[in-house]
Amino acid sequence: MAKHGSQRIVPRTLKGFRDYLPAAMLPREALIETARRVYRSYGFSPIDTPALEYLEILLGKGGAETDKQLYRFTDSGGREVGLRFDLTVPLARFAAQHIGELGVPFKRYHIATVWRGENTQRGRYREFMQCDFDTIGTTEVAADIETILAVHDVLDAIGLQRFTIAINSRQILTGVLAAVGAQDHSASVLRSLDKLQKVGPAKVQAELVDSVGLSADAAGRILAMAELSGAPAEMLAKLRDQVAGSEPAQAGIERLATVFGAVAAAGVAPERVRLDPSIARGLDYYTGLVLETTLDDLPQIGSVASGGRYDDLAQLYSSQQLPGIGASLGLDRLLAAMEELQLIEAVRTPAEVLVAFFVPERLNDYLRLAARLRAAGLAVEFYPEPKKLGKQLQYADRRGHRVAVIIGPDEFERQECQLKQLTDGSSRTVTIADDGEMLIGQLRELLANC
Amino acid sequence: MAKHGSQRIVPRTLKGFRDYLPAAMLPREALIETARRVYRSYGFSPIDTPALEYLEILLGKGGAETDKQLYRFTDSGGREVGLRFDLTVPLARFAAQHIGELGVPFKRYHIATVWRGENTQRGRYREFMQCDFDTIGTTEVAADIETILAVHDVLDAIGLQRFTIAINSRQILTGVLAAVGAQDHSASVLRSLDKLQKVGPAKVQAELVDSVGLSADAAGRILAMAELSGAPAEMLAKLRDQVAGSEPAQAGIERLATVFGAVAAAGVAPERVRLDPSIARGLDYYTGLVLETTLDDLPQIGSVASGGRYDDLAQLYSSQQLPGIGASLGLDRLLAAMEELQLIEAVRTPAEVLVAFFVPERLNDYLRLAARLRAAGLAVEFYPEPKKLGKQLQYADRRGHRVAVIIGPDEFERQECQLKQLTDGSSRTVTIADDGEMLIGQLRELLANC
Repeated sequence: MAKHGSQRIVPRTLKGFRDYLPAAMLPREALIETARRVYRSYGFSPIDTPALEYLEILLGKGGAETDKQLYRFTDSGGREVGLRFDLTVPLARFAAQHIGELGVPFKRYHIATVWRGENTQRGRYREFMQCDFDTIGTTEVAADIETILAVHDVLDAIGLQRFTIAINSRQILTGVLAAVGAQDHSASVLRSLDKLQKVGPAKVQAELVDSVGLSADAAGRILAMAELSGAPAEMLAKLRDQVAGSEPAQAGIERLATVFGAVAAAGVAPERVRLDPSIARGLDYYTGLVLETTLDDLPQIGSVASGGRYDDLAQLYSSQQLPGIGASLGLDRLLAAMEELQLIEAVRTPAEVLVAFFVPERLNDYLRLAARLRAAGLAVEFYPEPKKLGKQLQYADRRGHRVAVIIGPDEFERQECQLKQLTDGSSRTVTIADDGEMLIGQLRELLANC
Repeated sequence: MAKHGSQRIVPRTLKGFRDYLPAAMLPREALIETARRVYRSYGFSPIDTPALEYLEILLGKGGAETDKQLYRFTDSGGREVGLRFDLTVPLARFAAQHIGELGVPFKRYHIATVWRGENTQRGRYREFMQCDFDTIGTTEVAADIETILAVHDVLDAIGLQRFTIAINSRQILTGVLAAVGAQDHSASVLRSLDKLQKVGPAKVQAELVDSVGLSADAAGRILAMAELSGAPAEMLAKLRDQVAGSEPAQAGIERLATVFGAVAAAGVAPERVRLDPSIARGLDYYTGLVLETTLDDLPQIGSVASGGRYDDLAQLYSSQQLPGIGASLGLDRLLAAMEELQLIEAVRTPAEVLVAFFVPERLNDYLRLAARLRAAGLAVEFYPEPKKLGKQLQYADRRGHRVAVIIGPDEFERQECQLKQLTDGSSRTVTIADDGEMLIGQLRELLANC
């Protein structure tokens, strides 16, 4: 491979893959950090699994779609392997392998990269991060409730004000379909219902009758269910009538009543949760509560946090039945939304403070002071080159440091520094004769207010 | 793919790959979090790059060794691609592509997974995490100094007490070799010196004469350099004599004198840094300061943090010369050492507090209290099933929760809870009539002391 002159290698990334520069990475890290903190605050523990798995493991569940999107190859040992395309298949394999040692209930979060050979023309990335949490090995409603609470707390903690967690139970859907004799058409009915918002009730009604083959009455009852709206308690009362004959559906309704009562008791504002009888999600997979979350100001962005309850996580790999419930944050969507809603500060540095460098022979004094500030918990960048102040302040401006500490020869003489607030250009003189004590106090005060 | 009974897929990971269960993942996350916090406190910004790169990019620098270890394949678009085997090649490609936008000096950290088809019989893993930081685009000594300080601060922050950062300058080595006329044998000389600790000076002297072909005098002078020990200032004085004729070596010595003075000024204990004229590291790559770090109590574990200064990071991909300095933490070695030195707590949960669940009809009250504790910054797991206390405490014991909050029917009646310290079994009664106020105070106090 050539190394010089015209034979240089063109630096580029693969299509569908991204470099993250600091301006993009800082808010990503902050978002992930917030999700992690909230997950942990509910007792979810971190796990990780290999990026590469046996192809057999990865293909176990998927159909042709998965197969096509999978990054797969034969490794140098002749094994058929692939890059994970989600965190659910690895969790199923992981649970089958380790649940005996881990015990149930097992609560885990997993924040990691996955790969899919998506069509990049649809604006999709081939490498992205997933951010999942699950409670495995219990069917108790408390796990359903805490799944909703954790989603709520993450969105609240990142500063989103107006969002709605839409909740439903697959049991209710199943019950209504059974009540109108459409239980054998659930897939096509749900596909039609999915278009409700886009095409309106008349077209869905027509489709349910003409394509699916339901009676006009059955189609009408399904539409009536899907179009219910209002306070959860009232909606649940109406649904009780609609599914009168179905025990599982009744159970699903009582369970949702418990869920809505509990999330309110735990402090979730009523406008942030909604019962939506039309959502189904993951047709084959989810069996109980399902949820998806939209931002009231950016509904077009789609669901930013989704999930649901399943009956048997690891059935492909284990005879032990492992029911559970989980949800996943859409990090890319959330970041796009936060940007749109101006919840992201435009900075390119994690350090609030820049210590400028002027007097080369005072290097040790600058470093001693910077160390002192760091020991007090401040993030402090020391500019490494004794250049002109203008150049150093330009750098600080470009990076987004909030405060500069400036000490020239005169200031060293007087044992003081200029403390410059870069957000408004104001400046003040602070002593450094006290080993930085006063400066630390002033910096903390300034940073709390700028 | 079969789904049931005897046709289940055996759950297993690929050879050389690891699942991380919570007990292993919690200390990993804590270590990474500490490294991230320290890197940030020096103004290093996070970046990320794709796991997959064009093969041409990855092979650019490496020889046959890299090629053999690389996970490579042809993607479905017919591109030759590979999984990154380190974070330095991606950084070089990244810098060539983005440095114009980023500006210099550019300080980045990158904590990410890399893959190598290593021989697993040597106990190596094929997937592991690297934890690098670099300062690019400046040759100033301040960047050298802060590299050492950041390594020091990470090791100090994770609780390691006795470690030594060994520092050298490639310029000194080069100067000594030139002074004795061995400049054309540097590779073989350094290979011999590498064995000094293992085989002793006599054998190295013999090898330098018999195999490398140096005169006995030249070999003796090289050994004298390598065996120097003592305070850095004294050693540097002796080295000044040994490299008298070499200007770059003199410059390297003055620079090291500045470095040792500055790290002392910044508060590093003298026993934690050492000048070691025998270390070279990355023969072709490093050109100035080099460092490696050993744990005084576990020297056999090898270097836990290494790095150095280089002249031109991105020469394969760009005409812009980008000098820099960086270092990398050995996460797996550090975790092994922390375990050996009992710096890792044996817990499997990030939540200190378990709220036990007894009275099903009081579900909302439990959840309200748990939400209250979380809002106060406590990590609180709520046991989802109203089982017997013994079973719930067993779970807490297994997981490593430190405190349990127990509220049965009588306690609800009296508006109080039992606060049980799980580390010693002691228990106290605390009111919950004040919306958890008193409980939060007591929990904070207990957790600070247990």
